[in-house]
Amino acid sequence: MSVKVITVSREFGSGGRTVGKEVAERLGWAYYDKELVKKIAAESGLAESYILESGEYACSTNSFLFSWVMNAAGGYNGTLPMSDQLYIIQNNIIKDLADKGHCVIVGRCSDYALRDRDDCLHTFIHADKAMRADRIVRLYGERTDTPEKRLKEKDDKRRAYYRHYTGRIWGAAENYHICLDSGKLGIERCVDIIVDAARERVGD
Amino acid sequence: MSVKVITVSREFGSGGRTVGKEVAERLGWAYYDKELVKKIAAESGLAESYILESGEYACSTNSFLFSWVMNAAGGYNGTLPMSDQLYIIQNNIIKDLADKGHCVIVGRCSDYALRDRDDCLHTFIHADKAMRADRIVRLYGERTDTPEKRLKEKDDKRRAYYRHYTGRIWGAAENYHICLDSGKLGIERCVDIIVDAARERVGD
Repeated sequence: MSVKVITVSREFGSGGRTVGKEVAERLGWAYYDKELVKKIAAESGLAESYILESGEYACSTNSFLFSWVMNAAGGYNGTLPMSDQLYIIQNNIIKDLADKGHCVIVGRCSDYALRDRDDCLHTFIHADKAMRADRIVRLYGERTDTPEKRLKEKDDKRRAYYRHYTGRIWGAAENYHICLDSGKLGIERCVDIIVDAARERVGD
Repeated sequence: MSVKVITVSREFGSGGRTVGKEVAERLGWAYYDKELVKKIAAESGLAESYILESGEYACSTNSFLFSWVMNAAGGYNGTLPMSDQLYIIQNNIIKDLADKGHCVIVGRCSDYALRDRDDCLHTFIHADKAMRADRIVRLYGERTDTPEKRLKEKDDKRRAYYRHYTGRIWGAAENYHICLDSGKLGIERCVDIIVDAARERVGD
């Protein structure tokens, strides 16, 4: 079976997004990260900034506001809370993108959305806290006095979101075909491993 | 940092042992699996067959018997339950083996025993249940009517043992540098990925 789609899940600050982007560039495949947010925004009628901030961590957001916005956009059926509705839209967009052609999709439970497709390679990028804390201060400009707290907040939200919508444990190896420690291996080796695996036939 | 030691943790039936053995052969490194059991037997005074069957799943075994055997061997201090004493012996042997030279060590919480060494590459091999069920029937001669039950029993025991002695979650990606799905990727690609990573400098 040829690999057609690669999903990249990642711990905050691990460089997973960079890995995904470089994998897509090396393979010449489409790359969906911010592009995915744009599509969700277009489909839902919500602002990109809102989806970027709240969409991935939507368990506790205000369902009244969402109902109102979605009604205004003509896209809300009045029965589901905001986060569920947004998840469904996102899920359908991910499936459509996978149908379109070779691509790399970062985050948003894309591994779960595409779990029944045999032509996907699901990856998870993580790293130890010290490397990630250093990275988010150096590259993202996070405050230097509390990078560990920021890491914990972001990871906890991703974990809770993933658990809520998939019933699975975020970062459990069994959910992914390849999990890599980018701190130990380096970003470039992570890219190499995933690109090489994607170029081979898998699961035959 | 050059890699000196590779640990291989694995789901039952995933082919993790085969991966470890082939990695060791390809690198020309020592391979500790049954050899490790022999050393634990020599150190503890217990039979290899006993360690092989019970040692890795020792949380609920009979401490009276162990006290008696260990006393007879002159190695038991009378204060710890059997499983703890056996774990300590095993832990020390793993550390000694890692000190001796380049090697691959399979199972027995070796990733945790060597967690503070920067020259180790910790790997986890897993696969979906269908692949593993097929494999244990075909290669291990397990009973064909209940392979899934057998998988669950073995995995549950390994999970409980790992949790008990390390406080960590077995199979959580964060505990390992490389986690691979041998069913999706194939045994040979798993070997390639680990061998290639071991030949590079890591964590620099």
